[in-house]
Amino acid sequence: MANFDLTRRLATEEGGKIIFLVMDGLGGLPLQADGQTELEAATTPNLDRLAREGSTGLSIPIARGIESGSGPGHLALFGYDPLFYEIGRGALEAAGIGLLLEPGEVAARGNFCTVDENGIITDRRAGRIATEKGEVACATLQEIELPGVELIVREVKEHRFALIMKGKGLNARLLDTDPGETGVPPLKARPEPEAADDPAAKHTADLVNQFLAAAREKLAGHHPANMVNLRGFAHDPALPKFKDVYKLKAACIAVYPMYKGVSRLVGMDIIETTAHDEPLDEFERAAALYDDYDFFFIHIKYTDSRGEDGNFDAKVAVIEQVDAALPALMDLSPDVLIVTGDHSTPAKLKSHSFHPVPTLIWAPATHMRDSVTGFGERACMTGALGQFPAADLMQLALAHANRLKRYGA
Amino acid sequence: MANFDLTRRLATEEGGKIIFLVMDGLGGLPLQADGQTELEAATTPNLDRLAREGSTGLSIPIARGIESGSGPGHLALFGYDPLFYEIGRGALEAAGIGLLLEPGEVAARGNFCTVDENGIITDRRAGRIATEKGEVACATLQEIELPGVELIVREVKEHRFALIMKGKGLNARLLDTDPGETGVPPLKARPEPEAADDPAAKHTADLVNQFLAAAREKLAGHHPANMVNLRGFAHDPALPKFKDVYKLKAACIAVYPMYKGVSRLVGMDIIETTAHDEPLDEFERAAALYDDYDFFFIHIKYTDSRGEDGNFDAKVAVIEQVDAALPALMDLSPDVLIVTGDHSTPAKLKSHSFHPVPTLIWAPATHMRDSVTGFGERACMTGALGQFPAADLMQLALAHANRLKRYGA
Repeated sequence: MANFDLTRRLATEEGGKIIFLVMDGLGGLPLQADGQTELEAATTPNLDRLAREGSTGLSIPIARGIESGSGPGHLALFGYDPLFYEIGRGALEAAGIGLLLEPGEVAARGNFCTVDENGIITDRRAGRIATEKGEVACATLQEIELPGVELIVREVKEHRFALIMKGKGLNARLLDTDPGETGVPPLKARPEPEAADDPAAKHTADLVNQFLAAAREKLAGHHPANMVNLRGFAHDPALPKFKDVYKLKAACIAVYPMYKGVSRLVGMDIIETTAHDEPLDEFERAAALYDDYDFFFIHIKYTDSRGEDGNFDAKVAVIEQVDAALPALMDLSPDVLIVTGDHSTPAKLKSHSFHPVPTLIWAPATHMRDSVTGFGERACMTGALGQFPAADLMQLALAHANRLKRYGA
Repeated sequence: MANFDLTRRLATEEGGKIIFLVMDGLGGLPLQADGQTELEAATTPNLDRLAREGSTGLSIPIARGIESGSGPGHLALFGYDPLFYEIGRGALEAAGIGLLLEPGEVAARGNFCTVDENGIITDRRAGRIATEKGEVACATLQEIELPGVELIVREVKEHRFALIMKGKGLNARLLDTDPGETGVPPLKARPEPEAADDPAAKHTADLVNQFLAAAREKLAGHHPANMVNLRGFAHDPALPKFKDVYKLKAACIAVYPMYKGVSRLVGMDIIETTAHDEPLDEFERAAALYDDYDFFFIHIKYTDSRGEDGNFDAKVAVIEQVDAALPALMDLSPDVLIVTGDHSTPAKLKSHSFHPVPTLIWAPATHMRDSVTGFGERACMTGALGQFPAADLMQLALAHANRLKRYGA
């Protein structure tokens, strides 16, 4: 699996341009035993051309049999061993809305919820309040003052917000205050069992409990968003940066905050987009900035969403929409064009799954054409890349872009 | 990846004979998108027969995407993790001409160069002086005396020589004195930044600088070889030996010093050859000594050389020459015959490359015939061995030779 000591040592400042197109949850399954997968059923003349001309294979996001979340799936695609590097949800949520943590600061993911007069949770998502209402509630929480720490409370979307605590002697090893069910009150903040005796963790739990008490008071008139739960307390994950490990100036083109968050944490520039952007909009954004970056991570969200919905045909349609827009990328004549996914999301399972992910590398100067003539799960089984850890893909991308020196004489 | 603890524990003294044929830089690429590679284009009835009867696959020298030098590429083929075991160039150069280092001794690779009256380098290779002239210049350098150390100066070829320092308190962590360009004077020897405060490194740098000053004086009348640069200061890499880890009596049949050097460092006997030897000469050498060894490493240099030249047809011709000579090995009826390369050197790229290497194992008692009918990059993609780390190949060789006991009951 990819190795930063090695890439740091061998990566060069010069070399070709890389477009790294990630269709979230790309891999699928047939609905019937002898049927086709979503990718196989889709009409994809452009992807098929890339697969026919280039090298194909199947990438394994985490390890065989392991179903990956989107966070570790993307870390792996970016070359970070996902079993070594873990991003706390709080840090990811904060990064998604542009807030990076300094060392020692603590972030948590917040959810507005509804409690009754006895403090019992009746709705864990506060009726999915509108984002504008969430912003008002966040402004109210921002008024809270705690001794010795600075607070940042920032709306994310609907009932979700991010909380950051800045101060000395903080430790993020706390358990969630979200009980995960209704009919019970929010839990108190308290250290993880392994940090039970850590003074900083106890101090931080104490501050969080003061915050929660103040929130209950301040939000009394904000029904249904009249209380909060906090989850995923985390420090900055201190991920090595793309510029450092790969010597790449990298751009992220994604429509969802989480993917922007991971990209920001690995040091990519985040390109302005909106959730309404279509694949073609994203590809045109890359084209407009093509001279400014060495590496473009382009993320397609809705392959995964339609898989999660269990809507096979809708997932096929998203894949076809991407394929139809692909000439906007191919016209750039990138040195390396990679198409892959962060994990599989078969509509049949309405969920992420552990299956390996169809992957192609198109790099005319160096790719080895294999016998594969179309892009699909079964076709990729016989491809030049074999089955390989997703975390090796960045090393292959750099190699095909002629960005790695020789190892040894 | 192969594991010496395991092979040491399981290897037996008895078992079949193994011929390990390495065609340097074997892997290639098509010149045109829909064309054939060098190996595919070559007419190779004997290699095709071995591939058809035996098991095929693709070996990955270092890691996916990593272009390997010949040193680490061979270490990997010999089962040594090339990211763990590194051979300093000085130790390799010395071993290539038969000089093995004792612990604590320091070796460097030397280049005769030309300097003008101001000591500025005008030719880093001293006009590639004839080897006989190099020998005379080495004899002159051998007269230099330094306090407390014994020196060995030995000609390698043309402008290249090896320097060995024997004495107490030496440390090889020095930077090269070769500035890598003309128009500047040679650099002074000085410790690597990480060894800047090491007294032994400072002492060694001091001795090297005394040697360089004396060399300048001694060589004044030896124009164009009137100065030297030193590179790759190194200690003995202390590699485990074939006899120890594999219980194999092993012979190296190679025409180039570097490959003899690596083989000597892993404990093989070096069989007398010359650079004029053809593949058939090398194979006949193996046949003559067949009863004396368990394992024959046979190295073919010119597949790599012609690839580096960018001469597709000449590389094809070398492969065909090897194929034509192959009956000399097959007539020995070895228990295991392996054909592979240490890395790829596509003529298209005129360079080593990161691409995996076609590999076959022919071992009639144990091989699994796959559907492959000829020896080539694309054919090997579907073979019985899959894609695997080159460092696993020795373990497979031992297994096919029935030289490994069962692991566990």
